[in-house]
Amino acid sequence: MFAQTPEPPYYAVIFTNQRSRQSADGDDGYADTAERMVALAKQQPGFLGVESVRGADGMGITVSYWSSEESIAGWRQHTEHTLAREQGRKRWYGQFSVRVAKVDRAYGMAPQGERS
Amino acid sequence: MFAQTPEPPYYAVIFTNQRSRQSADGDDGYADTAERMVALAKQQPGFLGVESVRGADGMGITVSYWSSEESIAGWRQHTEHTLAREQGRKRWYGQFSVRVAKVDRAYGMAPQGERS
Repeated sequence: MFAQTPEPPYYAVIFTNQRSRQSADGDDGYADTAERMVALAKQQPGFLGVESVRGADGMGITVSYWSSEESIAGWRQHTEHTLAREQGRKRWYGQFSVRVAKVDRAYGMAPQGERS
Repeated sequence: MFAQTPEPPYYAVIFTNQRSRQSADGDDGYADTAERMVALAKQQPGFLGVESVRGADGMGITVSYWSSEESIAGWRQHTEHTLAREQGRKRWYGQFSVRVAKVDRAYGMAPQGERS
């Protein structure tokens, strides 16, 4: 899933994470919450898109894109997102890093092989 | 694999990519080249670290970290890296995006549960 972002500048939140060992009864509510957070984020002012991958070893990278620092701060203060982050620290993640960055330039190759 | 980066500011190159359908005889040289590129990047001036994940569906996110725009430009001009990128466009990737961003702030949770 590629994010369709506008011309820079805009902001990226790079969330690198390692899932903790999963409990015997499944994923401990993680998948449902992750899906809910994406749905909520999409409703936030300034949300531009998200790209997320998880490997077989439980390592994951999620990058969300935002129009401004203010929109990032707004999402950070969202009550349900705050509660989910607490659960993440306690239950779901063994380790993580968050980096907030300003995207200055972007390019790529579209599915048909054209350069964008 | 988490990158051990210094205090911001520094730069991130966010490479989001989808592998093309793999040929019948394996990965078409992709894994060897990817490994070689990481080894080469680590030798570049200004390289700070790399984090990379690929999902079962062939979607991947690799984020490399650099001390300056100049160090990113230097790696981009590396001959072997330039050749590898050409192969990537032709053979290995169905689609990709590259975003260059300046990291302004970072935080996280260390493996023992301590905040960093």
